[in-house]
Amino acid sequence: MFKGALPGFRDFYPQELAERAFIMRTWRDVARRYAFVEYDGPPLEPLELYTRKSGEEIVGQLYNFVDKGDREVALRPEMTPTVARMVAVRANALRKPVRWFSMPQLFRYERQQKGRLREHYQLNVDLLGEADVAADAELLACAVDIVRASGLTSNDVVARVSDRRILQAILESLGVPPSALAGVYGIIDKLERTPVAVSAEKLTALDVPAEAIERIVTIANVDFAEVQSRVTSGAAATQVEEFGRYMRYVAALLGGDESWLRLDLSIVRGLAYYTGIVFEVFDRSGEFRAIAGGGRYDTLLASLGGAGMPALGFGMGDVVLGELLRAKGLLTPAPAGSDIWLAGTEHDPLERVMREAARLRADDRSVEYALRPQSLSRQKKAAQASGAREFVTLSNDDGRNG
Amino acid sequence: MFKGALPGFRDFYPQELAERAFIMRTWRDVARRYAFVEYDGPPLEPLELYTRKSGEEIVGQLYNFVDKGDREVALRPEMTPTVARMVAVRANALRKPVRWFSMPQLFRYERQQKGRLREHYQLNVDLLGEADVAADAELLACAVDIVRASGLTSNDVVARVSDRRILQAILESLGVPPSALAGVYGIIDKLERTPVAVSAEKLTALDVPAEAIERIVTIANVDFAEVQSRVTSGAAATQVEEFGRYMRYVAALLGGDESWLRLDLSIVRGLAYYTGIVFEVFDRSGEFRAIAGGGRYDTLLASLGGAGMPALGFGMGDVVLGELLRAKGLLTPAPAGSDIWLAGTEHDPLERVMREAARLRADDRSVEYALRPQSLSRQKKAAQASGAREFVTLSNDDGRNG
Repeated sequence: MFKGALPGFRDFYPQELAERAFIMRTWRDVARRYAFVEYDGPPLEPLELYTRKSGEEIVGQLYNFVDKGDREVALRPEMTPTVARMVAVRANALRKPVRWFSMPQLFRYERQQKGRLREHYQLNVDLLGEADVAADAELLACAVDIVRASGLTSNDVVARVSDRRILQAILESLGVPPSALAGVYGIIDKLERTPVAVSAEKLTALDVPAEAIERIVTIANVDFAEVQSRVTSGAAATQVEEFGRYMRYVAALLGGDESWLRLDLSIVRGLAYYTGIVFEVFDRSGEFRAIAGGGRYDTLLASLGGAGMPALGFGMGDVVLGELLRAKGLLTPAPAGSDIWLAGTEHDPLERVMREAARLRADDRSVEYALRPQSLSRQKKAAQASGAREFVTLSNDDGRNG
Repeated sequence: MFKGALPGFRDFYPQELAERAFIMRTWRDVARRYAFVEYDGPPLEPLELYTRKSGEEIVGQLYNFVDKGDREVALRPEMTPTVARMVAVRANALRKPVRWFSMPQLFRYERQQKGRLREHYQLNVDLLGEADVAADAELLACAVDIVRASGLTSNDVVARVSDRRILQAILESLGVPPSALAGVYGIIDKLERTPVAVSAEKLTALDVPAEAIERIVTIANVDFAEVQSRVTSGAAATQVEEFGRYMRYVAALLGGDESWLRLDLSIVRGLAYYTGIVFEVFDRSGEFRAIAGGGRYDTLLASLGGAGMPALGFGMGDVVLGELLRAKGLLTPAPAGSDIWLAGTEHDPLERVMREAARLRADDRSVEYALRPQSLSRQKKAAQASGAREFVTLSNDDGRNG
């Protein structure tokens, strides 16, 4: 007998497929409005593509194997190395900035946890070749606009935005010694999931001054005015100014609506990866994992051996977004029934039904009919069960009767 | 440096993605018109799902490996075992007939040949739970209508249709001994690619009478009238009648156009698999491999351990169809440029451009603009290079100027 799909993999019956299609259609529609064009890469890539970026540790989390040509390969766990490879190969021929999106299925061999999958679909939006914060603003606005187009509001969702360079300046202004910075980032990254006393203890162990500890454990509450007052000179002050411009840009791109945005210096993403502004999109209730996350990674392409090029991107998975939409009653698509159920009477030869079906289908209508003679009442029941929008009997030659 | 994708795998840059999307959109549109609903399954499945249907030999052609939980797994080489599994799991709950389609990416580790890929996308259309030839007719009409919707005509393409049971009756009427039938099927399957003398020799070795050999090597030319005259009694005569009804149905579903169809008893597909009518769609020039193929496999679900249920389906890959469309000049989509390139003058602050972009995007227009201040002439050039359909300058507050 059949055992079912592998653990962590999903079957998409028509209902689940309709939900996935709703999410993907929203992704594609909004990405298109922002003038991003779609690309795709192979789901199987050389293993080296991932170890080069993430080190050998990553291998423990991958679906990797040796293929029949003795190549070390892996199912893609993320899209960025693929996009970096594709852009590197055609770096000179591509129009800049490169504005690309993709919706790959990604794979991780994660230890089995409840509700934790081993595959998901992830929208990837990347903008390469533009260093100005206007590019950062386009990216975040696109992410927020997708959430908005899904039916969510800024009461449901917030984009938390940060910049490592500003965080560093704030920490320095609080008297954190430079040698402690990396450790402090790690503590900040875990603040939300750690009791305050534990974080404070760890900060003390790093020689962070007591006055600073109080501010660091509540660093999520530092607002832009406080940033401006604390960071008043040097390169960091320029970055603060740029950040202010960024926030104004994002608001402009969202039609003046700032309610989606929040400065939150506790957002620390991949340390070795991001070089500037970073963001994560969360539901405000804090019930779900991040809906989306991304930022600027200006040095990544060069470090992977590609063309040095400023770059930034974000990812948004189908699973968390789907859970949130479902919880809010916003994930309601059903598999489309046909436009028309075409019914013949017992006197109509099936060929007559088929000729009429052909005529309607040529007119771009979707048509179902009984594949063997049935009574009208039985056909009516079948039509209802199928979700057909119209029930048309052939004897009405003029066409429709609802 | 970057090495590129694995051999046999494709990168889809925006141009290639646009071509793939054109093909997939046609698949989806026509399948929808025929009231098929979309489903999907995992690209990674238990290896057993494939060996159970095709035997251990199949393993040599698969991307298979042992995962980190010691499971034997394989990248899916075909979709039918997945659909059989999914239908078996919910056999009672599903409305009959089940009318499903999917567009999976499939994987085979084939020996490297020029132009031969290790992955492709394949439309799979399946109809389960209906034994009548009306179901067979729906399937073939759907396949032909896809080809037609792609811009091809019946001068370019023909569907070659056969039925193993009729072929058997013809062979018996020609005096082929029952013990030789399986061998003769194999010879017929290879007729097109084999010199006549070689086929004749092989048939002689199987004790096929000399008079029969002449007809068998030209069996592709046996028309329906000859079938009717040769098979006049018994179960086979009923099948001939059914086959006649099937051909009339297909013609009706194609709006009366029979020019797409041709009886061709040389079409022999997987012997262990198909149980009734089978078909293959080819370009008439004979330059390409089959565009699509399928048929009835009434016993497959039960043999895989699922619910016994009459069933039929076809597959159509993106590669051969794409090659044919390209050869005919019918694969011309380009990545969509934006609807509007929005240009600010040097005096316009970027935020003003962004606010207008937001307004237009909210109105479902796709909008690109320069992410840093540029002269109007430079922006005009960028707009042209981007393929934007309109160039709109902000100073014209009333909106468009083409």
